[in-house]
Parts: sequence; C-alpha cells; structure tokens
Amino acid sequence: MKDDDLILSFDTATNNCSIAITNGDFGQGQVLGSLSLNSGVTHSKRLLTAVKWLMQNLELALADIAAVAVGLGPGSFTGLRIGMATAKGLCHGSSKPLVGISSLDAIAAGVYSEKLICVVMDARKKEVYSCFYRCNPGKIARRCSQPVVLPPQELAEQISEPVIMAGDGIDVYNAVLADVLGDRLETATPLHRFPEATNIGFLAATEHADENYLDLDQAKPDYVRSSDAQLSLVSPIAKGKARNQ
Amino acid sequence: MKDDDLILSFDTATNNCSIAITNGDFGQGQVLGSLSLNSGVTHSKRLLTAVKWLMQNLELALADIAAVAVGLGPGSFTGLRIGMATAKGLCHGSSKPLVGISSLDAIAAGVYSEKLICVVMDARKKEVYSCFYRCNPGKIARRCSQPVVLPPQELAEQISEPVIMAGDGIDVYNAVLADVLGDRLETATPLHRFPEATNIGFLAATEHADENYLDLDQAKPDYVRSSDAQLSLVSPIAKGKARNQ
Repeated sequence: MKDDDLILSFDTATNNCSIAITNGDFGQGQVLGSLSLNSGVTHSKRLLTAVKWLMQNLELALADIAAVAVGLGPGSFTGLRIGMATAKGLCHGSSKPLVGISSLDAIAAGVYSEKLICVVMDARKKEVYSCFYRCNPGKIARRCSQPVVLPPQELAEQISEPVIMAGDGIDVYNAVLADVLGDRLETATPLHRFPEATNIGFLAATEHADENYLDLDQAKPDYVRSSDAQLSLVSPIAKGKARNQ
Repeated sequence: MKDDDLILSFDTATNNCSIAITNGDFGQGQVLGSLSLNSGVTHSKRLLTAVKWLMQNLELALADIAAVAVGLGPGSFTGLRIGMATAKGLCHGSSKPLVGISSLDAIAAGVYSEKLICVVMDARKKEVYSCFYRCNPGKIARRCSQPVVLPPQELAEQISEPVIMAGDGIDVYNAVLADVLGDRLETATPLHRFPEATNIGFLAATEHADENYLDLDQAKPDYVRSSDAQLSLVSPIAKGKARNQ
C-alpha cells in the first residue's frame, strides 16, 4: 500500500448516488469525505456536481487523487452507464487510472457476520441480482459464489442455513424471502441497502496497489443480465418486429 | 413509529463533520442523504453550508423535517458547542423539536459483533472517552456501562475478554491498547472511527416517537469531563492566578 494515495470513488447502480474520497484499505484506511443522495433525480444531473462539491469542501483537486474507482454494477443500466462514462471522463481528463469494483461487493463489504451473507439487489422484472459472501473472523466479507440474476423465491430456495441479507432487494421482496427462509432470515440494518462508495474506495486500494486498472477504451459495466436491446437482437420475434418497423 | 418522519441529524464531536437525513429507525429506516467531511476546517465554517447543500440536493426544506437530532458528545468542547448552537438555532427558527444522542452511541450503533464492543474516542491529554456495549443476536449495540474519561492503559486493564474496539482513539493509542490486550483486541474497520449522523438519525427516531425532546433553553452537550475553564474555578492555584490577574 502506498502512502497517501487518495481514491475518488462513486456508485450509481441504484437510485442512491454514493461518492467518497478515501485513503488506504479496510485495514488502515481513512474516509476523508463521503456523501450519498437517494432521491428521484437522475445521476447525470447531480453526480459531477456532487463530486465537485465534495472535493472543494475537502480542499482537494483532481491532481491530488491517485485513482478513480467506479461501481461496476449490476444495477440500473442507465445508472451504470452514467457512472462509467463519468469515471472515464474524469480519468481521461486527468490522466488518472480507473479501478472497477462490483456494486454487490460494495454492499457486502460493510456487513460483518459469522453467518452466510447474501446480497440481494432489486433487478426489476421480478428478479434480483445476488451473490453470496462469508467473513473470516475479524475480516471483511469475501465472495463465495458468482453474481447471478434470478427470481427471489428461487434464490431463497437455494439457502439451507441461517443467512443475513443486505441490499435493496430485501425491502422489495421481503415477503417472498421471509416466506421461504422463515427464522433463518436476518436482515442487515438500513445502512447496508446500497453500494457504498467508501467500501469501493477501500476495496479499490488493493487493486490500485496491484496496478490492476481497467482499460479506459474497453471498460464497461458488469450488467450480469443482458440488456433489453441485446435480448431483442437474438430473439426471432423481436427481430421480426424490428424488420417490420 | 410515525410514517415519513424525516430527521435531520449531525455530529461535530470530532474533526469529522457528519450530517444525515433519515426516516425511521434501525428496523425499518431509510437514509435519504448523508455526508461526512473530515478535514481541518472548523465546523463553524461548514456545518450550516453543508446542511443546506444536502437538503437542497434532496429537494427538502426545514419545513419537511420532523425533528433535529444532535450528537451530544463527548468530544471536542468547541465542536460540541458549535453543534449544539447550530441545532438550537435551527430548532428555534423552524419550531422543530430537538433530540440529543450520545456521540459514543453513534459510533457503537454501526458495529455488529458477538464480542464485547468498546468505543474509544481520543480525549486529548493522554485520555480517552469510552463506553462498553453488547449486541443481542441481530440487534444493534446497547450500552452496558456509563461513559467515562480515563487513560487508555487503565481502560485496557479493565477488559478481561475478547473485545472489538471502534472510535478514533484506537488509531492514537493502538500501541498501548495492543500491548495490554494482545490477541483479545480486534479493531473495527475504518468505517467505525467517528460518530455517524445516520446512526444518530436512526437512534433519534425512537426518541422522537416517544417525544423525548431536549429543552431548547437548558440543553447542553455531555462533556463527560469538566472543561479547563471549570477546572480552574475549583483549583486553588488557578484561583490564585485569577486573583492576581
């Protein structure tokens, strides 16, 4: 870990716009500043304004930042594209490297439990994005599965042990999840509903130390599910429709 | 719990200025927005500006807020006075009730562990403010001692079981604490160094539901330790000095 390597991080995978400036990792790190705004306003309207406000109030310029880190998703396709486009813009403009961190990991990293941890993000269309995690004693949550998109009931049926769930999907699908899991279901506090930029910053510190950067020309969000536009390209019905238009 | 009772909360007990707008408690609550700024700038310069910025970005006015909640300390005397004065000003101006929450509790509430939880805030003068907490399974930390101010070594010597420590005192006194506690000492992640306004908001929701408000004329911070000014009033040497001035 380099000394004094400030990371500007943000996540726009959900309605919540989360921004942070951190230094270091979960072991020795420090939060210099953070903000989150959860309202109906589109991320394109407020993300850069909020980044600018935060940096000004910390008396920092982009030149003081060592790397930019962005939440890769999954989540809202539009939100993710705005986040990635903004991150690329900032990096191109300032010649800073870009780190990508899963938005699921950015939720899980804030939860500490000896139980199985399951992140559940609302994916619309009666589905959730989900991934499983476990904590070693005194350590942050680490993935023990791959991210998937599936109906919440199908997810719950895969779980045979006590579980703590985090992410905004637990508010949307609480009844379905509680119905299958019963007493085995514990819900994380409301502090663990959305991907937190502070967690992205701390996770990104390791990637930055390893110089594990994204290619600015090639980098794209991790949608986990194909977009409607992509789906219609491979669907004969959609193709037919497109042809007739 | 009333529906849609927004609480504006902030804490200025440490160098970190933390502000949040929340709705509800730890069970069913929601963070509408939050921000934290940890820099050398005095709270008097930025607290109100930051509150205003946050509310504007959430398209909220003071009229939309049900109550104001302030971190009572312990911590920096000047910081606490600025926080309390600002909270009283906002409440007087808008006829909103004021809730007070311990800044120690606002650190502990974010930590979940089956171990004993100990909050340690730097109190300068080679002392720490401290208080012990325990979590029932799936519940937030609750106090199991009264707040005290004492040398960190004396604190560590009182602890005979595995403990997780949170608060900025663990960075300042890590060597002393680790020396006495050895393997029994676990350090919470850097997310739990400062009193978080989101926690104050969630804790204040219960006080608000019970209409457990502070008297705007009488309310003062909980300093835990007497101020230098107060100490010199009762010290014969200081009295003599004052007399000779």
